[in-house]
Amino acid sequence: MPLEVYQPPHRILLGPGPSMVDPRVYQAMASPLVGHTDPAFFEVLSDTSELLRYVFGTRNEFTIAVPGTGSAGMEAAVVNFVEQGTKVAVFANGFFSDRFTEMCRRQGASIARLEKPWGEVYSDEEAESFIAKESPDVVMFVHAETSTGALQSPAAIARAARACGALVVADCVTSLGGMPVEVDRHGIDIAYSGTQKCLSAPPGLAPITLSAKALAELRGRESSCVSWYLDLKLIDEYWGKSHRYHHTTPITMFYAVREALRLCRQETLEIRFARHRLNHLAFVAGIEAMGLSMHVRPEHRLWTLNTPRLPAGCDDGAVRKRLLEEFGIEVLGGFGPLAGEILRVGLMGASSQRSYVLLLLSALETCLGRDGAVRAAESVYCH
Amino acid sequence: MPLEVYQPPHRILLGPGPSMVDPRVYQAMASPLVGHTDPAFFEVLSDTSELLRYVFGTRNEFTIAVPGTGSAGMEAAVVNFVEQGTKVAVFANGFFSDRFTEMCRRQGASIARLEKPWGEVYSDEEAESFIAKESPDVVMFVHAETSTGALQSPAAIARAARACGALVVADCVTSLGGMPVEVDRHGIDIAYSGTQKCLSAPPGLAPITLSAKALAELRGRESSCVSWYLDLKLIDEYWGKSHRYHHTTPITMFYAVREALRLCRQETLEIRFARHRLNHLAFVAGIEAMGLSMHVRPEHRLWTLNTPRLPAGCDDGAVRKRLLEEFGIEVLGGFGPLAGEILRVGLMGASSQRSYVLLLLSALETCLGRDGAVRAAESVYCH
Repeated sequence: MPLEVYQPPHRILLGPGPSMVDPRVYQAMASPLVGHTDPAFFEVLSDTSELLRYVFGTRNEFTIAVPGTGSAGMEAAVVNFVEQGTKVAVFANGFFSDRFTEMCRRQGASIARLEKPWGEVYSDEEAESFIAKESPDVVMFVHAETSTGALQSPAAIARAARACGALVVADCVTSLGGMPVEVDRHGIDIAYSGTQKCLSAPPGLAPITLSAKALAELRGRESSCVSWYLDLKLIDEYWGKSHRYHHTTPITMFYAVREALRLCRQETLEIRFARHRLNHLAFVAGIEAMGLSMHVRPEHRLWTLNTPRLPAGCDDGAVRKRLLEEFGIEVLGGFGPLAGEILRVGLMGASSQRSYVLLLLSALETCLGRDGAVRAAESVYCH
Repeated sequence: MPLEVYQPPHRILLGPGPSMVDPRVYQAMASPLVGHTDPAFFEVLSDTSELLRYVFGTRNEFTIAVPGTGSAGMEAAVVNFVEQGTKVAVFANGFFSDRFTEMCRRQGASIARLEKPWGEVYSDEEAESFIAKESPDVVMFVHAETSTGALQSPAAIARAARACGALVVADCVTSLGGMPVEVDRHGIDIAYSGTQKCLSAPPGLAPITLSAKALAELRGRESSCVSWYLDLKLIDEYWGKSHRYHHTTPITMFYAVREALRLCRQETLEIRFARHRLNHLAFVAGIEAMGLSMHVRPEHRLWTLNTPRLPAGCDDGAVRKRLLEEFGIEVLGGFGPLAGEILRVGLMGASSQRSYVLLLLSALETCLGRDGAVRAAESVYCH
C-alpha cells in the first residue's frame, strides 16, 4: 500500500507533450480552490476566454475550454457537429486525422478521406478539388500533426469549405500558443487544442472556439447530442450569463491555464512565435550538422514538433532510453508508418528554450556518436 | 486583457463540492510533471489503483480514474454499458438519477423509473419488487444523493439485480472516502465517483471500478462505444500492461488524487468514517438546537451532505450570500423540487472538521437570528 509521498524524477520534457511547465503555473495550481459557482471563479473563466481569444486569433464569443484532455476537444467537435449521415471530408496525413475519422465513424457519419503519407501536406489545388468533389457538410484537417511534424496551411482548405457551405474543423493541439493559428483570418469554424503543448500548462483542458456560424448551428440543433458530458449546448449555458450548472469544472486546471495564457500575453504572440522559430532552426541546424535529415520538407515543418530521421539501423528505443536514463530528457519516437524512423522532439512553450535545445543536441551527439551539433546550433543563435 | 496574477478570495468550502483541499495535496500538484508514458508515471497510476481499491472496498482489477469530472464517470458507465434497446431500471430520487436517465435516453435505452420524492430512499421490498417486475439489463441507483442528502442502502438493490442477471451501477460521487461504499461486499458491478468530494482533491478525475462480470462484458462487447474518449475498452489498454497510448492523462490531477488517497489510507477509513459521522451529528445537534429540522429522516442521512430545512419565509439566497460575503463560507441551496427549502452543507473530506462545523453554526446563528447551535454541537463533541 503506497504510503510515501510521491517524488517525481527530474525530467526535461522535450516530447510531443506534456511540455515543461513554468513555475508560475505550478504556483497558480497551488492556489486555494473556490467553488465552481462562486462569482470569483466566473472571473477566472471570463479571463480565460479573453486570453484564449488572443491566442486563437479570434473574436468568437464562444471561446472556452472543455474539461478533458485534447482528445475531449476533438470529441466535442465531433459529437456536437457530426451525426448519422453527416458528410465529413477528412484530410488524412497522420495519426490524429485517423482518430477524428474513427470518432466520426462511431457517429455513423459518411466519411471521405484524402490520403497522403505521414509527413506530407496538401496543396491548395488538392484541397480545393477534394472539397469541391465531395461537397461535404464538415471538413476536417490537422493544423499541426503531432505524429509527423507537419504543418498544414489552413487558408485554401477553409476557403474551399466556406465556398460549399461546409463547417471547417481545425485540430490546433500542437500549434496553439506556438505557431500562428489565426482562426478569424482563415475563417475556421471549429478549432480545438490541449493545454499541455505550446501553452505549457499540465494536461486536463481542451480549449475550443466556435465561429458564429458553428454556434448558430449548435444552438439550432434539434436532435440530442449523444454525449451529455461534452454537449456544447449545455456547456454554453454554464459559460454564458445564466451560469447554469452543468458539471463541476476542474477549477485547479483553470487556474493553471489562466496563468499559462497570462504568460503568453505578457510575452506576446509575436515574440513567442519568434522564439519557437529560432529554437526550431537552431535544432535543425544541429541535426543536419550530425549528417541527419528532417522527415518533413523545410517549408512544411512545425517549429513546435520536430521530427529528425534516425540513421539507418539505429535503435530508436535504445536512444530514447539512454536520453531518459542518463540525461533525464524525454523525447518520443515515431509510430505507425514512422515507427523506428524518427524522433519526435517537442520544442513548445516552456520547453522551447535555447538551453534545452543545446542540452538535447549535446546528448544526441553522445548517443549517436556524432559531432558538430551544438556548434551548429550556437551558430544560429549567435547570428 | 487580464495581466495580473489571479488571487483567489479566501473561502471555506462547505458546499456539495468541491471541498477543502489539504495543503499536502496542493503541494503534490506543484510537483514537476513527468510524461504520461514515463515509467515513473505508471507507478503513480498503479499506486492510485491500489489506493482506490482500498476506498472502494474492492479487489477489482479494473479500478482506475477517467479524465474528466464526476459526470464523466457517470457518462463512462452509460456509454460503455448502455446502448440502443438496453433495458435500464433507475431508482429515481434526486437530480443525479435524473442525469443518468437523460444520458441513457440519449443512447436510445429503454428506461423504467421508480420515483420517490427528493429526500426519500427505497426499502428492500420496493427494490426487489421493482427489479423483479422490470427484469432489466442494467440497474442504477445513487448511493449518496448530492441534491437531497439521502443515503440509499445498496444491499437489496444489488442482490435483486444479481438475481436477475442485471449489472448494478452505483453513483458514489458523494460517498467515496467519507462513507462506507463496500463494492465487493454488496456485489456492485460499476461504481464511480469524483475527486472533489470526500477525497478532497480538486475536481478533474472520476474514479471508477468494474467487477469481473462488468469487465468481461466490456471486453466482449462487439459494437463500438459511441464515445471514443470514454471508451473503457481503450482506456483499459492504457492502464494495463501494454500501456497502449489512448489520450494524454491529466498528470497533475493524478498527483493530487494519489496524495489525497494516501492521506485517506494514512488516516484509515475507520477513523475517517468516525470523523465524518461525528461532525455530522454535531452539525445536526446545532441545527436542531436552533429549532430547525433536517430534510432527510435520521436513518437515511448522509454524513457528508447535510440538508437542513430553512425556516418558512427565509430567503436562502440572502442567507448564503451573507455566509459567503461576511464569513467567507460557501454553502449551496436546494434546487429543483427543493429550491428555496434547504441548505446543502458538505462536511466531507478535509471540510469535515470540528472547527468548520462550529464556524458554520456560529455564522448561521447570526444569519438566522437564532441561538444555541454552537453550544449543542460542542456538547456532542465533548460527549
